[in-house]
Amino acid sequence: MATSQTAKIPQAQRMFDGATHKLDVWTIFTPANVPPDAINLGQGFMNWSPPEWITQGSHQVMDEQVMSHHYSHPRGRPRLLKAISKFYSPQFDNLVAEGRELTNEEIVVTAGANGGMFAALTAHCEPGEEVICIEPYFDQYFASIHFQGAKPVFVPLHPPTGEGIKDGSEWTLDIEQFRAAFTSKTKAVIINTPHNPVGKVFTKQELEQIAKVCIEKNVLVIADEVYDCLVFDGKKHTRIATLPGMWERTLTVGSAGKSFACTGWRIGWLIGPPQLTSATLAAHSRIVFCTNSPMQEAVAIGLEQAKERHFFEDQVAAYQERRDILCSYFDQIGLSYTKPEGSYFLLVDISPVKIPEDYPIPATCQGRGKDFKFCWWLCQELKVVGIPPSEFYCDEHVEIGERFARFAFCKDPELLHAAGKRLLKLKEFL
Amino acid sequence: MATSQTAKIPQAQRMFDGATHKLDVWTIFTPANVPPDAINLGQGFMNWSPPEWITQGSHQVMDEQVMSHHYSHPRGRPRLLKAISKFYSPQFDNLVAEGRELTNEEIVVTAGANGGMFAALTAHCEPGEEVICIEPYFDQYFASIHFQGAKPVFVPLHPPTGEGIKDGSEWTLDIEQFRAAFTSKTKAVIINTPHNPVGKVFTKQELEQIAKVCIEKNVLVIADEVYDCLVFDGKKHTRIATLPGMWERTLTVGSAGKSFACTGWRIGWLIGPPQLTSATLAAHSRIVFCTNSPMQEAVAIGLEQAKERHFFEDQVAAYQERRDILCSYFDQIGLSYTKPEGSYFLLVDISPVKIPEDYPIPATCQGRGKDFKFCWWLCQELKVVGIPPSEFYCDEHVEIGERFARFAFCKDPELLHAAGKRLLKLKEFL
Ligand SMILES: Cc1ncc(COP(=O)(O)O)c(C=O)c1O
Ligand SMILES: Cc1ncc(COP(=O)(O)O)c(C=O)c1O
Repeated sequence: MATSQTAKIPQAQRMFDGATHKLDVWTIFTPANVPPDAINLGQGFMNWSPPEWITQGSHQVMDEQVMSHHYSHPRGRPRLLKAISKFYSPQFDNLVAEGRELTNEEIVVTAGANGGMFAALTAHCEPGEEVICIEPYFDQYFASIHFQGAKPVFVPLHPPTGEGIKDGSEWTLDIEQFRAAFTSKTKAVIINTPHNPVGKVFTKQELEQIAKVCIEKNVLVIADEVYDCLVFDGKKHTRIATLPGMWERTLTVGSAGKSFACTGWRIGWLIGPPQLTSATLAAHSRIVFCTNSPMQEAVAIGLEQAKERHFFEDQVAAYQERRDILCSYFDQIGLSYTKPEGSYFLLVDISPVKIPEDYPIPATCQGRGKDFKFCWWLCQELKVVGIPPSEFYCDEHVEIGERFARFAFCKDPELLHAAGKRLLKLKEFL
Repeated sequence: MATSQTAKIPQAQRMFDGATHKLDVWTIFTPANVPPDAINLGQGFMNWSPPEWITQGSHQVMDEQVMSHHYSHPRGRPRLLKAISKFYSPQFDNLVAEGRELTNEEIVVTAGANGGMFAALTAHCEPGEEVICIEPYFDQYFASIHFQGAKPVFVPLHPPTGEGIKDGSEWTLDIEQFRAAFTSKTKAVIINTPHNPVGKVFTKQELEQIAKVCIEKNVLVIADEVYDCLVFDGKKHTRIATLPGMWERTLTVGSAGKSFACTGWRIGWLIGPPQLTSATLAAHSRIVFCTNSPMQEAVAIGLEQAKERHFFEDQVAAYQERRDILCSYFDQIGLSYTKPEGSYFLLVDISPVKIPEDYPIPATCQGRGKDFKFCWWLCQELKVVGIPPSEFYCDEHVEIGERFARFAFCKDPELLHAAGKRLLKLKEFL
């Protein structure tokens, strides 16, 4: 029994505990492995709590309602299903046009967006089928697809070249390259917008092009829109599910963790037509049965009151300030970056930085993209943790990603200023 | 796209939404489908809240610790890992003999026991392999195994015959029948003790016999011990992992939901050697990433203080009283049952009950065991919900289970008395 594990495990390559050849980036740059005084702009969690009106409301529900401690219906608690319907229906133009709201049958509440996407892939992907992901991709996709015995197929966004401040629209999808990635085995496509780590918000035109191919190829679309509440500069987030011919083939993914600064509550949801949610619910109900009840109630409170409290408007303004603080330091340093239109990540072009050639790099970062060496050096020497985005590319495309480093700005202004001041030292290495 | 779903979904047969031929028992007897004034002794959740000292402690943590709202390490939060180690180590005789406590590498905190078993099966079962389950079995096993492309193989417990109060030990495993169920494809065995729905606590001798075969056949054992804190009459719960040669092949499953009356918190754990937990952690971290952080803190509080507060002693006494209340009504009626040694379920022999032959039974209960008809009639006419245990048998063994009905006694004494009084009417149907 000593080494009991399935072939699925090494297939899913980057994993915890280093049981395979490549350690995942989260383990390499976990707090225990970096200097204790390093400022962590690595993993995407906030250094503040969710709003007090939500947590206090949730305490009250837990104190007063016995059933808030017990199993929920696997689909989700009635109050949360209703709150999701009220909050999201006006955002789906197709529903507005039909003059109707989301029904319970069009929603599944899941164990975070992560658990939701795993359930959707379990429900809809057979071994041997293929799922197309756009690079850079959220790394959980890779393993979630492999665990189905299915195969991820990667199509890269093409990054901007040259110096200066870049715009999300300069990261382009070559639609013919995208089309060419389809085979007879392609079952699904995952589209992430607003995008982690690029910060790009796909335009309606871009999504229309993608939608056209997905309809032509008759595939399922998983629309990972967990950053839908974090779109800056008054830009518009288009939901691919709302484009003609797309509702019936799209599962739209949301995350309370991203919307309400509670990444550890593990509440997410999938929205889509009953014929797609029904099998997903069946998978979800067998994987975890239901996600936790008390925080479902809390998130319902959040969605119910967000509008009257102007919560998301205020939150976007606060994130935009944070984004601008972090960007201002890279302006001073003179490094190019893509100005985030959405999400809370900043992708910086680190190619001009010359780190000492003989700088000692641990085995975990060897044989990986140059960005791994840069990020290791950065956290050891400048004491700021960033994430090497080549982690989010397949082996063949590592070169595209290794020019960059990702910094999370879901941190308070003080911490961002402190990190920025440390980062200024980069000037000496240009 | 209209009917997109994998073959895994219909394989996993009994599911929500009736998308396959058999509706699962939870849907048939869900509150919406039974008379609103029926007393629900069906699904196994308590009608009380977890202890106030836990919820108040958890409110405080949520108010004071930002990180209690954010991602946990997939393995579990440090405080909970420590609390599990402190609480469980003295219960594992093998560790006591070695003079040591559980290390972090021997624990994985999961999304309920359910999510934990799903992760363990994902990590350790290849498509085509077989997993042996003892009947009656917890119905989630069936689907969790099927979702791996693996096959469940069933070996029944043989129930007592004749009238009177039966003892758990009268439900016997024919060890030669058990041995004969192994093939070259057998990868794992699931052993549930204390047992749902029989209420049997397997004796050390029984577990030794089982262990001997598992060692001989070199398989993984998943020891589902979620009711380990609910053992009555001073009986001893033996952990199969502590028997010679078993630690290295066993993952022991626990559930805060069962221990602290918080089935909706979705906190469970797996305990076992690093070579078994490591792949399981890899699977778990990709399925849900981590389970929810605030309730992990709450459960840590529960485990830390349980001993000094005599929580489990008091709780066992309270459950024992509840068990005895419910049993007393069946004594009055004159129906035989197995006196629960553990868990919170009572299995009653309903074979002497004659329900009206022409009683109208819905399509969902037709073509199922006789217990489905009985339970349908019972909830419509006597207004008490019980669960037909033939749901927990494979098609070939339905006859063994259909003699019984399962009643949950995780309800307060008032409700049990009210249900009992309604059940007395059964006398008229003997
Ligand atoms: C693009 C993307 N999708 C999904 C997730 C997972 O969200 P959740 O925490 O709700 O599982 C993340 C988290 O970082 C993400 O960046
Ligand atoms: C035998 C058995 N195992 C596992 C579970 C699931 O436990 P949890 O709620 O922690 O997922 C149950 C719940 O009823 C059970 O009866």
